[in-house]
Amino acid sequence: MNTNVAEIKNLSLEQLNVLADEIRNEIVESVNKNGGHLASNLGVVELMIAVHRVFDTPNDKVIFDVGHQCYAHKILTGRIEGFKNLRHSNGVSGFPKSQESNFDTFNTGHASTAVSLSCGLMRARRLNGEDFKIVSIVGDGAFCGGETYEALNDLASIDGQCLIILNDNSMTISKTEGEVVKSEDNLVSFLTSVGIRYLGSVDGHNLYDLLKMLEYAKTCEGHYLLRVVTKKGMGDNDAMNDSERYHSVALSDVKTFGNIVGEKLNTMAFADKKIVAVTAAMTDAVGLSSFKKSFPDRLFDVGIAEEHAVSMAAGLAKGGLIPFVTIYSSFLQRAYDQILQDVSLQNLPVKFLIDRSGFVDGDGDTHQGIYDIDYLLPMPNLTLLSPTDEVELRKAMDLAMKINGPVAIRYTKYNFAQDYTVNCEQPHVDIVCTSNVMLKLGKSISKMLGEIGILSSVRSAFNLSRNIVSKAKLIVILEDSNFGGYYKSIASINDKVLGYYVNKPDYIQADLEEIVKTNFNVNKIVDDIRTKIYEIR
Amino acid sequence: MNTNVAEIKNLSLEQLNVLADEIRNEIVESVNKNGGHLASNLGVVELMIAVHRVFDTPNDKVIFDVGHQCYAHKILTGRIEGFKNLRHSNGVSGFPKSQESNFDTFNTGHASTAVSLSCGLMRARRLNGEDFKIVSIVGDGAFCGGETYEALNDLASIDGQCLIILNDNSMTISKTEGEVVKSEDNLVSFLTSVGIRYLGSVDGHNLYDLLKMLEYAKTCEGHYLLRVVTKKGMGDNDAMNDSERYHSVALSDVKTFGNIVGEKLNTMAFADKKIVAVTAAMTDAVGLSSFKKSFPDRLFDVGIAEEHAVSMAAGLAKGGLIPFVTIYSSFLQRAYDQILQDVSLQNLPVKFLIDRSGFVDGDGDTHQGIYDIDYLLPMPNLTLLSPTDEVELRKAMDLAMKINGPVAIRYTKYNFAQDYTVNCEQPHVDIVCTSNVMLKLGKSISKMLGEIGILSSVRSAFNLSRNIVSKAKLIVILEDSNFGGYYKSIASINDKVLGYYVNKPDYIQADLEEIVKTNFNVNKIVDDIRTKIYEIR
Repeated sequence: MNTNVAEIKNLSLEQLNVLADEIRNEIVESVNKNGGHLASNLGVVELMIAVHRVFDTPNDKVIFDVGHQCYAHKILTGRIEGFKNLRHSNGVSGFPKSQESNFDTFNTGHASTAVSLSCGLMRARRLNGEDFKIVSIVGDGAFCGGETYEALNDLASIDGQCLIILNDNSMTISKTEGEVVKSEDNLVSFLTSVGIRYLGSVDGHNLYDLLKMLEYAKTCEGHYLLRVVTKKGMGDNDAMNDSERYHSVALSDVKTFGNIVGEKLNTMAFADKKIVAVTAAMTDAVGLSSFKKSFPDRLFDVGIAEEHAVSMAAGLAKGGLIPFVTIYSSFLQRAYDQILQDVSLQNLPVKFLIDRSGFVDGDGDTHQGIYDIDYLLPMPNLTLLSPTDEVELRKAMDLAMKINGPVAIRYTKYNFAQDYTVNCEQPHVDIVCTSNVMLKLGKSISKMLGEIGILSSVRSAFNLSRNIVSKAKLIVILEDSNFGGYYKSIASINDKVLGYYVNKPDYIQADLEEIVKTNFNVNKIVDDIRTKIYEIR
Repeated sequence: MNTNVAEIKNLSLEQLNVLADEIRNEIVESVNKNGGHLASNLGVVELMIAVHRVFDTPNDKVIFDVGHQCYAHKILTGRIEGFKNLRHSNGVSGFPKSQESNFDTFNTGHASTAVSLSCGLMRARRLNGEDFKIVSIVGDGAFCGGETYEALNDLASIDGQCLIILNDNSMTISKTEGEVVKSEDNLVSFLTSVGIRYLGSVDGHNLYDLLKMLEYAKTCEGHYLLRVVTKKGMGDNDAMNDSERYHSVALSDVKTFGNIVGEKLNTMAFADKKIVAVTAAMTDAVGLSSFKKSFPDRLFDVGIAEEHAVSMAAGLAKGGLIPFVTIYSSFLQRAYDQILQDVSLQNLPVKFLIDRSGFVDGDGDTHQGIYDIDYLLPMPNLTLLSPTDEVELRKAMDLAMKINGPVAIRYTKYNFAQDYTVNCEQPHVDIVCTSNVMLKLGKSISKMLGEIGILSSVRSAFNLSRNIVSKAKLIVILEDSNFGGYYKSIASINDKVLGYYVNKPDYIQADLEEIVKTNFNVNKIVDDIRTKIYEIR
């Protein structure tokens, strides 16, 4: 198997097609073993072969948007060994990573940034007097994100070559939302409005056509868009027939909190017709499939457009409804300004259901949910809740309805459905945890403390009362946030508090246990607690 | 003068034109007295008369984007008295405020949200079985923001009436950037691509045409865009001829830090040709006019598109340049995700010059720069600097060049050019301040402490060293951030620290002194310090 860009320049068309099959097999095998994004990656195998065949990478720059379609690219750029351990600590990342290879121009985990990044590179290229080519590969979902439009609006004012490949598989994660990419006519009108020339449409699985088209595109000097029509899951029958399910393949069969959220919201919505739900291209992933079936009129999937999702929800709230906006923690970052300006400052009853809070396994640093506590706590009028199990999550959702203002409920991906709390009548230390994952860590620390004669309780931050704080001899907070905003808030007014948080993030694309271990030094925590208890005595 | 919507329904065309003149006079008079946005508001007087004449406000909903074009609207909706004290504590806000009047549908201070908000209202209207009309008034600058595109992409999927009025004055604050609104052809192509019907273009200063057009628009059932061509500053020669200068009229002639930034960056750019500058439609306002003259090729104004500005800067940095991104603190919130994902996590040498940090006079809650400390401190790899005077600002910019990674420099609007520091050999308390404005507060507290025999020093946080912290008996931090992230970081590891920050923001649209007074209780601070010093003794 030829897996470096120099070699593929010499292969015949037939050999390239064989290579495509081999790459597909590698992808299926590795994703089945390691988890990851299957359908989208199977869709772009020929495209990536053609790009590396035609362009002089890494001198020419390839920019992915969204990043998760980079598997064939990684295999073709000398990373087949690492690819076998995809998304694990001894393997390659599931997203482009410039630290991994100079074929990865940028680390792109969030959508709709590629054209902006290209604009910057184009301007630098011109000022530096360089002449490399820039090729952005943008999914049709990412093409609906506002930043793409901002960048296209700016692009016409920049000199030099720029090729945008629209990977059009007519699907974001659920289905494509948005008018612009709905038809070729709409797309062409749109490109006219921003002054970009349209190269036409090509079958993304026909290598002969792809190569011919890219050879031509390579000679074009201005700004061009080429639409490449691909089929998500191509070459794998299961993935092709149910590409939403096979968008991302999970290894674990642990239940997610998303399932509970969906079911609970469904029940609530039957009782209160003001309740509506908003999602940004992730209906199934956030657990809203059953809600969608029960209330097709009351679920709004706006596509990969988190900013619009949040402002639109503010509009729904102003109109007298109670919107539950369900977005992954990391993706909700895109709507920081809208949460603050349109919801928090106006005290509107928008309820955020923040999935994938805290540590996220497999996806690496771009997808961690460890900023939400720190960016939400400073927002006026907003109540932040951090339930750690099913009972607390349901309580939090009921509570959200009782609070007449914005509420954010953050929860981890997995619901381990185990009770990690530790009750203790007269503990030397109360360990307080901001999530399910932190509770598990708390329990193991409690056990170690027990072995050296220190009694401890382990409890959820969701249930922490002033009474407990005032009665405690020592409080230790375990917080899955980068800055420790919750801990610092308590510690700044109370000197019997120790806190542990991520601080300098050192995640690895690994399972949760490994991530927690890397970021929290259990032995040091136990030592600190012991020292502090002696101090207090 | 008729200043309520019921009355204007009965006026003749001639009387309406007289009213327009009267409103213009009111605007000029009030802005000259109180400061505020002049040119844009003079441009939409006839438009606002026509909207309130034709539509049944407040039952029909008017949504402003951006909000600062609301003056005529406020005058026409019974707020002429408050308008005389515009932007002051006893007058109306310079932006729509639903607390002020039910004619103000949303509080809109940041650009490009109106269509999103409309989408939410439209969906609520449908679910509630209501039939009011929705009119969004969107500036051509706001039309270039990504969220507008996200919303337009979603709009076609929503049933019911929606009128978008594009207030096209061919200017954002500097000049319009962006292809879509550059020509009517481009605009029409764009509207075709998102499935919105174009009603055509009308002279925004011809009341007869405007009324006729809006009467027709009122009968249209789907989604329509009407382009209203207006002239910024209409009716005032100075404002019309130099609308960038008269975009916003300042009362104070205190120099701004923006002037220093521009001059310093200019000098630095002569010495290092890697330095480039990025602005989001605010070249003059952030102090970059001279830089633009010296280096027209190295200044990039991307329009009101902060997200794109930041990712584009990441591209510039990747291309070997050192971009200085100059954006107001409040507007930079829009790019939170891009700062984190494209700059901070990738450790790229993008330098942020954050103007209007801390408290901002006149503009009210949507424009406060009191979130930057709290949202920037948690970002990995990023160095946050908070210079409080000219010397420190210049030092910070030099330092930014020496740090091989992202740097953010925050500074207040005004450079009072007074030294508020207090030196003291053996102070009982060290007062540490995060800005020029906080230093001034610190000095007055220091004086009060002196009167009760407590010795204090007052210093800038920019110069705070570990040595000072370890030697201090008591540290008091005065922080112009909402959450007190800087204080909490220090206090959580050191129990001899007291901190004061905004906490629950209670700003008023007033001068700085009044804002500071409302948010910091000086007597309480002095009491706290005295108590704490006795405790320590």
